[in-house]
This record gives sequence, structure tokens and C-alpha cells, in this order.
Amino acid sequence: MQEITSVNNNLVKETVKLQQKKFRDKENKFLLEGFKCIEEAFNAGIEIEYAFVADEKKYEFLEDKAILTTESVLKKISTTDTAPDAVAVAFKKNYTVDNLSGAKKVVLLENVKDMGNLGTILRTSTAFGADAVVVYGRECADIYNPKCVRASVGNLWKIPVVYIEDFKELQAVFKSYERVATLPRSKNYLKSFKVNEPFLVMFGSEADGLSDELINFATKEVKIEMTSSVESLNLSVSCAVVLYKLLL
Amino acid sequence: MQEITSVNNNLVKETVKLQQKKFRDKENKFLLEGFKCIEEAFNAGIEIEYAFVADEKKYEFLEDKAILTTESVLKKISTTDTAPDAVAVAFKKNYTVDNLSGAKKVVLLENVKDMGNLGTILRTSTAFGADAVVVYGRECADIYNPKCVRASVGNLWKIPVVYIEDFKELQAVFKSYERVATLPRSKNYLKSFKVNEPFLVMFGSEADGLSDELINFATKEVKIEMTSSVESLNLSVSCAVVLYKLLL
Repeated sequence: MQEITSVNNNLVKETVKLQQKKFRDKENKFLLEGFKCIEEAFNAGIEIEYAFVADEKKYEFLEDKAILTTESVLKKISTTDTAPDAVAVAFKKNYTVDNLSGAKKVVLLENVKDMGNLGTILRTSTAFGADAVVVYGRECADIYNPKCVRASVGNLWKIPVVYIEDFKELQAVFKSYERVATLPRSKNYLKSFKVNEPFLVMFGSEADGLSDELINFATKEVKIEMTSSVESLNLSVSCAVVLYKLLL
Repeated sequence: MQEITSVNNNLVKETVKLQQKKFRDKENKFLLEGFKCIEEAFNAGIEIEYAFVADEKKYEFLEDKAILTTESVLKKISTTDTAPDAVAVAFKKNYTVDNLSGAKKVVLLENVKDMGNLGTILRTSTAFGADAVVVYGRECADIYNPKCVRASVGNLWKIPVVYIEDFKELQAVFKSYERVATLPRSKNYLKSFKVNEPFLVMFGSEADGLSDELINFATKEVKIEMTSSVESLNLSVSCAVVLYKLLL
């Protein structure tokens, strides 16, 4: 097994760069941190380029892609407070609007910025059987951000995640769909809400909610029942409740 | 208005200590970071001892409790990456099992360690009309941890949050309740699940699930429907979906 122990090694330096979006975009690669995440990705057929590992035996399945290393190297290349026992570099899966063809139950997130929320929503959407997720807007978080990868707990690559920036493109793709806006000011309560397939269910960011453009684009509106003492719900929570009702 | 600008000032040092649980416990105080949180607490009648503020006008409602300060002081006493425009010190609200008397819909969290999850679940429980939350076990997170306070977004003090460490005490309080265990291995799907009041609905930690003790204590079990490709859900998400179904 190859061995790299110096934090100044070139491959270590190249790996660290992938913590930044611009390098992930340029190289078309991302980081997988920790056993569970690496194993999940491996089993899902995600192509792993190489992996720095502290434990030879545990990562035998990676064969010659595993590089034995030290805790200091792992600390340097990982983004968590405590260094994981391995960090792998994998190739991104890139989806386009073509991957939305035939999708009947699609989730849209507008300008979502919180990495934890984004990863959690990908995990929930997959768990509840969505066909795809659209990440919409110019200010969206990168799903390959390490924090998002962690929050998704291996559910980043099971259904297509498609970035759409342009409203015209969104309109064209979903023109024949029912389009549901989740809106706190709506008069339609979720408990008695129904929608026919194919549908697109749209969520705004926690700070700003849905844009007027998307509210006008909607064919239906819905809100979650709440007691009057609470102003709003966490975005992952709102998504979970709405998706559970509409998808299952 | 009083003014403190040195990061070495004694009150600044005392305030920083409240980032640690042992000092919060000793002093019975906690930190409120940022306008929204401070305003919510103030309006809810939480007693604020003093507040370091960068903006005099905005915090006029705090009257002589506001201390004008600098960004460096705020950076030192706050726990966020970007310093908020104010940090207040407030007195904790302490609840005991007596506060559970008459509660019909109670949420229990066992050994929950993630501060973000804990705060989010308090927010969701309040929003969906739970009467109280029990934080159970010896390894539970502190609801007054700054990260939990932030994740609760002002919903830390609207319903009683009661710590119970001892199983015998738990048994005594909830002996006449229906006790629901949320279990991935259960055969009862949530969609068709019903429970009568008073009830206690119990969630385990993300890492370990519910303990055998609590599983045996349960009178009912339930699981959330999921596609087979996903192993589990985020704890805040599981709670949200189950609570929405049972509370609303």
C-alpha cells in the first residue's frame, strides 16, 4: 500500500483545495469524509479516485486506491473538528435537465444557503421517494460542499439533483406540472391538501421564503398548520412534513 | 448608556464563561445572541441581566441593561463565526417534573447530543402544540448551549422543558400515559397510527436509537414509511413528521 505521511505532500495539498467550491467545480471532484460515507459512495458506484486512510484493513475494499497516512494529514484534509479515519476524493455525478424527463414528483429548493439543511433535505427527499430535486437560483449552496455531503449521509447520489438558474428554463421544464408553493400566508392547510402527479413542490430559503416569481408560477398553495406562538419552522422540518404528506 | 470597550474587562470575561455548561449551571444564566433572539426572549418575559450592544437605538427597549460596546468585544463573547450586533445574558427558566402535571401531549428525547437537532425539535414541538418536552438520560445536551438556543429560534421558553435522568422517576410520572416508541423495526406504519391522550412520544438519539429500557416501557410502537434505499432519517426530520401526525 502506498504511504504518504507529510502534510506538505503535493497530493495532500491538492486534496485540501477540494474544500473550496471553485476547485471542486474545476476538478469535478469532491471529498468523502469517514467510513460510512465512503462505503455508501463505493457501494452506490461513485467513482473514487483515491483515499487517505489511517486503517489499512478497514479500507481493503478500496484496493490500490487507498493510501496509508497519519492523523495529521487527515486533520489537514478534513473539514470536521475531529479528524475522520479516512478522506476520499471522488468524481461528482453531474445531472442536467434531461435527467428530469419522466420525473413525476420533484422537489424544488430556491436559493437555499444552509449546507446542513440542503443535505438533510436531499436525504429526506430520497427517503420519501421523490424522483428528483431541483436546486434553483443564483445563490444556491453547492451539494458537494463537505457539510452538505455529511448531512446527506450518503443520499447525495441516489436521485438526480439538477441545478437550474434561469426562470425561463424552469418554466419550460415544468409547464405541464402542478406547481405547489409552500407559503405561510396560504389559506390551504396541509392536512386536507391534495395534488395530482406530475407535480413540483417548491420551498423558499429560511430567510427570504419563495420569490414572487415562483409564487406567481405556482398553480397551488399550501401551508403547514402551527400554533400561533411560533413564527416559522426550520426549512428541513417544513420540507419533511410537506414531503411526507405529498409523497407517501 | 454604560460603555465597555476593552476585551479584558471583567464583565466581558464573566460573559465569555457562559459559553461553558458548568458556568451556565453555576450562574443559572445563559447567552442570547443577536437581535431576533434577544427581542423574542424579552417579549416572552425572560429576565435579561445585561446586554452588550453595538447599536444604541435598536436596543432601547433594554433600557439601562444595554451596555454599548465594540465589535471586538462582541466577537469575543459570541459563539458564531460572524459576531452578532448584540449578546445578552439572561436567567434560565428551570422546570421540574411538577411542570408536567396536566400535560397531555409530551415529547421525550433520549440522550440527544446534537445541539442543532435539540433546538430544532424544541421549535417544532412548540409549533405543533406539544405541552412539554422531556430531555431524558445522562448524556443529554444542554438546552442553554448557544447552538441550541440559536436553533430553537426563540422557542426555548414557551413550553416546559424538563430534564429527567432517572428511569424510576420517568416511570412514576408517565405510568398512566400511552407511551409511543418510534422504532425503525416496528411493523406499525405512521400513516394509519393513532394514539389516545395523554401520551408520551419517545425518540432515541441518531447514533443509538432508543434504549431497551424505553422500548420495554413503551405501550405502542410506530415507524415512518421510507423507500428501501435510505437507512434512516435525520432526528429533527423524524420528530417533525411523527409530531405533525400525532399532535395536529
